[in-house]
Amino acid sequence: HPSLQVTGGAGFVGSHLVDALMIQGHEVTVADNFFTGRKRNVEHWLGHENFELLNHDIVNPLYLEVDQIYHLASPASPPNYMYNPIKTIKTNTIGTINMLGLAKRVKARFLMASTSEIYGDPEVHPQQEDYWGNVNPIGPRACYDEAKRVAETMCYAYGKQDRVEIRVARIFNTFGPRMHMNDGRVVSNFILQALQNEPITVYGDGEQTRSFQYVTDLVDGLMNLMNSNCTLPVNIGNPDEHTINDFAQIIKRLVGGESEIVHKPAVEDDPHRRRPDITRAKQLISWEPKVPMMFGINKTIEYFHQEINRKK
Amino acid sequence: HPSLQVTGGAGFVGSHLVDALMIQGHEVTVADNFFTGRKRNVEHWLGHENFELLNHDIVNPLYLEVDQIYHLASPASPPNYMYNPIKTIKTNTIGTINMLGLAKRVKARFLMASTSEIYGDPEVHPQQEDYWGNVNPIGPRACYDEAKRVAETMCYAYGKQDRVEIRVARIFNTFGPRMHMNDGRVVSNFILQALQNEPITVYGDGEQTRSFQYVTDLVDGLMNLMNSNCTLPVNIGNPDEHTINDFAQIIKRLVGGESEIVHKPAVEDDPHRRRPDITRAKQLISWEPKVPMMFGINKTIEYFHQEINRKK
Ligand SMILES: NC(=O)c1ccc[n+]([C@@H]2O[C@H](COP(=O)([O-])OP(=O)(O)OC[C@H]3O[C@@H](n4cnc5c(N)ncnc54)[C@H](O)[C@@H]3O)[C@@H](O)[C@H]2O)c1
Ligand SMILES: NC(=O)c1ccc[n+]([C@@H]2O[C@H](COP(=O)([O-])OP(=O)(O)OC[C@H]3O[C@@H](n4cnc5c(N)ncnc54)[C@H](O)[C@@H]3O)[C@@H](O)[C@H]2O)c1
Ligand SMILES: O=c1ccn([C@@H]2O[C@H](COP(=O)(O)OP(=O)(O)O)[C@@H](O)[C@H]2O)c(=O)[nH]1
Ligand SMILES: O=c1ccn([C@@H]2O[C@H](COP(=O)(O)OP(=O)(O)O)[C@@H](O)[C@H]2O)c(=O)[nH]1
Ligand SMILES: O=c1ccn([C@@H]2O[C@H](COP(=O)(O)OP(=O)(O)O)[C@@H](O)[C@H]2O)c(=O)[nH]1
Ligand SMILES: O=c1ccn([C@@H]2O[C@H](COP(=O)(O)OP(=O)(O)O)[C@@H](O)[C@H]2O)c(=O)[nH]1
Repeated sequence: HPSLQVTGGAGFVGSHLVDALMIQGHEVTVADNFFTGRKRNVEHWLGHENFELLNHDIVNPLYLEVDQIYHLASPASPPNYMYNPIKTIKTNTIGTINMLGLAKRVKARFLMASTSEIYGDPEVHPQQEDYWGNVNPIGPRACYDEAKRVAETMCYAYGKQDRVEIRVARIFNTFGPRMHMNDGRVVSNFILQALQNEPITVYGDGEQTRSFQYVTDLVDGLMNLMNSNCTLPVNIGNPDEHTINDFAQIIKRLVGGESEIVHKPAVEDDPHRRRPDITRAKQLISWEPKVPMMFGINKTIEYFHQEINRKK
Repeated sequence: HPSLQVTGGAGFVGSHLVDALMIQGHEVTVADNFFTGRKRNVEHWLGHENFELLNHDIVNPLYLEVDQIYHLASPASPPNYMYNPIKTIKTNTIGTINMLGLAKRVKARFLMASTSEIYGDPEVHPQQEDYWGNVNPIGPRACYDEAKRVAETMCYAYGKQDRVEIRVARIFNTFGPRMHMNDGRVVSNFILQALQNEPITVYGDGEQTRSFQYVTDLVDGLMNLMNSNCTLPVNIGNPDEHTINDFAQIIKRLVGGESEIVHKPAVEDDPHRRRPDITRAKQLISWEPKVPMMFGINKTIEYFHQEINRKK
């Protein structure tokens, strides 16, 4: 079993990935500064002989010996990454350079957690990997979008120049247990609002779309990609596209309760449509999502329910 | 007279800027690692009491006291920036963060030398500043284009979060004396080829266009922008657009000689058309180019001629 490093492993996606890797019997080291992650997400592994948790900010160099690096450290939701734009940029630029430098030194394979946000507000639909994107370089989302774009560029530069083995996952909207209750994202907001009988807030006309994947599907995709030969960027997402209005109805129905659906002002530079073309993932890493949306949402509602009770 | 810092001040554009600033009576400090610049370009100021030349790589921190920073350090021509893509990215990401950190600490005004390349292969013509661009994030030019895009993002992040006074110049193709003879750019290649009676090499069908400005016009624009109140990005370029075929003819005619014009294979991701819309520069920084192209080309031919003789 190769030894693995997961940056951002105490976060939402990272902690599910850690679960899957630990179950496979790997040695796993997590490097996380707990900006948006928390120890709770991985506490069930603390004390396990194969597991190590480092409180480390990747903006600083890190010296370890590992075979594969899953590089997930970065705030991911708009309120989190806009909270401190400079830090978001530093994490994705300086931080990614540090982790690539580490990969280069120890000859580790490197998987970059990129994002569908590199396509910006896309003008082609669905998005294929060879689409160059439509991003405002000086808009409010740029600290994330542009930093992720250049992080991809860095990966291919280290791949070409220093022969680092590179894998690039372009992750589309993901949800599931351990997602942040207060990160302002649509899934968490709507479930929380419905559970608390508060109005469900749709931004703008609600006709914008997203395609949501369940977190365990994503984790399978990341592992398939890491262990494939595919050096091209690969979309990992669920093509099951819904309008935000739809989504509000679905969550209201699954949760039950009295919430009314209200409209709030639209958000600046909010992408209008987003849906992955996953042809490449199917062909090159034999992956496609399996978890039905209703199952995933019910699991997430359950989790939020528990969290609310735990906090009482 | 405020004290000024010019990163990349030993380069082509930087050295002309230094000349203009020194003549105005400023204290000028140049920070340059001489990757593509050379001491020769500023040697006429060595020993002057207002001038200091630091052999410094901006990927490392720098501690100085200055009032304004002109941030030009970065390789600029495709062969130079593709020579070491990782270094190009580090210079524009880590290097720009360092210089912004310096500007923040000493409360200096900061001018970023950005580029028309942030528009990539543009789909709108001419390019206005609110166009978001069309850049391949993992193409051969990405180490420059994406790094410059995120450098702009960084500027606005420091502007908003830490109140650094930001100026962003999007510089279009520039030529003139002290441009590198062997940097593979069209102006230098064509003049050199014509002067040496070698074939003039047009890449592709030659119907792609560029708009060339003379370096002293650019220097005026950078100084106007620095001393204006304009925090928006501003195109600085000459809207006088020519096809590369045109350009080959013009240079052949001005140099004289026997060169034939030949076609070579097209370059990957080569932008098809490029021309600045300079409405904003006219309105907000009272600038427009003044030097006629023929004058500029003759000056450049003269310079190349001298350089060839000096090397003999
Ligand atoms: N969740 C999604 O829908 C989604 C979509 C696209 C891409 N992604 C990407 O997947 C990755 C994980 O996202 P997530 O949803 O799990 O987010 P998250 O916020 O839950 O996890 C990110 C983790 O990174 C850590 N981190 C942040 N900055 C760090 C730094 N400087 N040093 C060390 N650790 C740091 C955080 O503490 C957190 O544990 C991110 O890179 C994100 O951009 C997520
Ligand atoms: N010349 C053009 O047509 C053009 C067009 C658009 C933008 N620009 C921008 O203008 C600026 C100057 O371009 P130029 O044509 O004078 O290029 P140049 O190569 O002549 O000058 C760049 C200078 O920066 C220095 N430098 C590079 N990396 C450095 C580092 N890490 N630390 C310190 N110094 C470093 C080089 O030694 C050189 O002196 C660049 O930022 C470039 O991107 C130029
Ligand atoms: O095991 C390592 C090796 C490198 N680095 C960091 O990665 C960066 C980039 O590495 P690279 O080899 O490109 O750079 P260099 O060593 O030349 O600065 C370095 O500056 C270090 O900060 C790290 O954190 N761990
Ligand atoms: O309470 C909310 C939160 C989000 N959204 C919308 O839901 C979509 C997805 O937003 P999210 O922040 O979850 O993800 P991203 O925009 O990064 O895809 C966007 O159009 C948001 O404007 C909404 O209507 N109400
Ligand atoms: O006078 C200065 C101040 C800062 N820096 C560099 O600029 C970076 C970014 O500065 P910032 O204040 O954002 O960062 P911090 O000091 O918090 O790391 C720092 O890390 C330093 O490397 C510099 O070179 N000169
Ligand atoms: O010997 C040369 C050098 C360049 N070009 C073309 O001239 C244009 C400008 O190239 P340059 O490298 O000067 O600048 P940039 O592409 O960065 O604008 C591009 O279409 C090149 O393909 C050419 O035809 N022959």
